[in-house]
Amino acid sequence: MSAAPIDRAQARALDAADPLARWRAAFDLPPGVIYLDGNSLGPPVRGTSARLRQVVDEEWGRGLIRSWNDAAWFTRAERLGDRLGRLLGAEPGETVICDSTSVNIFKVLAAALHLRPGRRAIVSDADNFPTDLYIAQGIAAFVPGVTLRLIGVDGTPASLLDEQVAAVLLTHVDYRTGAMLDMAATTRRTQTAGALMVWDLAHSAGAVPVDLAAAGADFAIGCTYKYLNSGPGGPAFVFAARRHHAAARQPLSGWMGHAAPFAFARAFEPDPGIRRFLCGTPPILSLAPLAASLDIWEQVGIDDVRRKSLALGDLFLALVEQRCGGALISVTPRAHALRGSQVSLRHPDAYAIMQALIARGVIGDFRTPDLLRFGFAPLYTSFEDVFDAACALAELIATGAWDRAEFRRRQPVT
Amino acid sequence: MSAAPIDRAQARALDAADPLARWRAAFDLPPGVIYLDGNSLGPPVRGTSARLRQVVDEEWGRGLIRSWNDAAWFTRAERLGDRLGRLLGAEPGETVICDSTSVNIFKVLAAALHLRPGRRAIVSDADNFPTDLYIAQGIAAFVPGVTLRLIGVDGTPASLLDEQVAAVLLTHVDYRTGAMLDMAATTRRTQTAGALMVWDLAHSAGAVPVDLAAAGADFAIGCTYKYLNSGPGGPAFVFAARRHHAAARQPLSGWMGHAAPFAFARAFEPDPGIRRFLCGTPPILSLAPLAASLDIWEQVGIDDVRRKSLALGDLFLALVEQRCGGALISVTPRAHALRGSQVSLRHPDAYAIMQALIARGVIGDFRTPDLLRFGFAPLYTSFEDVFDAACALAELIATGAWDRAEFRRRQPVT
Repeated sequence: MSAAPIDRAQARALDAADPLARWRAAFDLPPGVIYLDGNSLGPPVRGTSARLRQVVDEEWGRGLIRSWNDAAWFTRAERLGDRLGRLLGAEPGETVICDSTSVNIFKVLAAALHLRPGRRAIVSDADNFPTDLYIAQGIAAFVPGVTLRLIGVDGTPASLLDEQVAAVLLTHVDYRTGAMLDMAATTRRTQTAGALMVWDLAHSAGAVPVDLAAAGADFAIGCTYKYLNSGPGGPAFVFAARRHHAAARQPLSGWMGHAAPFAFARAFEPDPGIRRFLCGTPPILSLAPLAASLDIWEQVGIDDVRRKSLALGDLFLALVEQRCGGALISVTPRAHALRGSQVSLRHPDAYAIMQALIARGVIGDFRTPDLLRFGFAPLYTSFEDVFDAACALAELIATGAWDRAEFRRRQPVT
Repeated sequence: MSAAPIDRAQARALDAADPLARWRAAFDLPPGVIYLDGNSLGPPVRGTSARLRQVVDEEWGRGLIRSWNDAAWFTRAERLGDRLGRLLGAEPGETVICDSTSVNIFKVLAAALHLRPGRRAIVSDADNFPTDLYIAQGIAAFVPGVTLRLIGVDGTPASLLDEQVAAVLLTHVDYRTGAMLDMAATTRRTQTAGALMVWDLAHSAGAVPVDLAAAGADFAIGCTYKYLNSGPGGPAFVFAARRHHAAARQPLSGWMGHAAPFAFARAFEPDPGIRRFLCGTPPILSLAPLAASLDIWEQVGIDDVRRKSLALGDLFLALVEQRCGGALISVTPRAHALRGSQVSLRHPDAYAIMQALIARGVIGDFRTPDLLRFGFAPLYTSFEDVFDAACALAELIATGAWDRAEFRRRQPVT
């Protein structure tokens, strides 16, 4: 961080030299808004509604039921999965788009319990995203003998990783702090203890380089509506390493996971490959925005994205330090190797400050109890955006203009 | 059935007197096609892609993350559930749109097992739609002690309904034969035996009158992409009778089913109401086509729909009897009280016959091993459609024009 005050000209110079700057035009962002919440919901790629219209009016409206074959709807979730998998270091046939992240956590934890029949414990982190914990709790309540152990509550990783542990479920990039785990080292530690490693990539996919193959990960899940712009509640994904395909079983064994769904056999027989992680009929319309997004991702390099993401974060952290006078404390690691693609700042009145900031057109979000979150999506976030956002934040802090009843009023989704 | 040959003029006269005829214009159907497969995938309602464009470009594109509050995305699945629930005899707060039918079967069977802790058996019908059986098998394989008993394989309903049975899972209208069960009587028999009744309404919702409250049903699930036109893989629904809300637990306890999702608490605490059957983030884009469809359903009476559905089926059955010379045997009950909204005909070469019929623009479907299925959707199927479809079928049978290699070639989705 530079001691000399950073000015707008420096931000503009960074934009001028940015090889990704041209991609901003590919996204549909409203005027007058600086959007730093793509880590919660990415904006639409331009052309998303046109693509949906094509799927609705042509494939569905003209093709009707025939499109399951003629438009290859039947295999679309796998083909999109393969395209997404390339971003995650997965091989073809190891990734499929389906259901929600929560549902997919259930599937892979159940699969891990099946693959480690003598082991009945799931380990996660007490600070993991709640749905990860809730789903593990759901399994523990449903299946006698299964327990959930929480790092930070029940012990440390070292003390918890005994011969009872079937699976370790961790989120690669923490949703609150933006801290990133070492995927390869953590996977190795888990597997050395005889357990299977399940990664939640909700805040990683499209945000940071991921190499599931190099890390030797067993399973991964994640969502596509953050950095992958698939829309609110867009479909999630499952990665399963090919070595587990033959033996893995999961109890959401719906007909689309069957080896021959249209044989209408009475007994479930899983598909030999990744399709065994499918359950019901794939959501064809919901797949269209993701396809539009992957068209872009196939033209950009994740290393370029990562380089810019870190530079955006560095700039934001430096500006906050320079301009907010210590009122806001970063909980995000400064070290690049430990950081995802967001910065989170702590303040006791974070909620009201964020509401006031949003009212000024700078959209981040709040996470209870005291965090302001700012996500950096290098395909559409500019250095000048970050400069303007930091200035708006600094001005709010300096003037105390956030301290009004209208900004303290809580909304259902906060 | 009249002994005198039915002619086109009679079909046209029925259309002229049909109070629902005007609704055909509300659906987007391609020219030159008679679509009798709305029991598999309904066509889009006109305006569906415009509504999606509004959701994508305005709510998502302009509103971005703010739309969870400002566009009430957060409660949309419940509000749509209430609108759909009116078609099913549910009270407000008993129905929610979410996930797939298969995922929802898992939730309600698990909830039933939780509500009947001393009982570990699930009963279903050997001829139920396979995904119902597969999900029950998935639970039985996952939870020690749970078993699946099949009517027709393991015994009769009477012999199977002992003190071990927690839940009976049946499909109201059979997907192959179109035969309809007596919902009230079956529910009563199940509950008299101390078990909970779970109805699969995939072929009932929007097809036949359903009164879950009058029947005293415990749970129901079903899809919205058949007679409710929500699009391929459109979201499904869960009905849970209010009396079960407080005690029901289901292990797909994702964050959207939490009493306070944005408190980000570590321990799952279910929402007090129907939201406890939610799991992950609701699929906002996928909800738009269903909303367009429910706009229509709120303007038509299900009794009118039922009356026309039966008349369409009667006409089809009569024409097949008159014109196909016994080559095609109906497996659908003629009695109105026992019939849903489709007619299925048996023929050893059903697959090739259906392919040939589709090539002539009459779209029904095939179900293994030997059934031709024809669904009647009274909002867009005319009596003349049925006349023309029956004539095309009769001509194929008379000429044997279906007996060609191109029609016997199997496709992935059949």
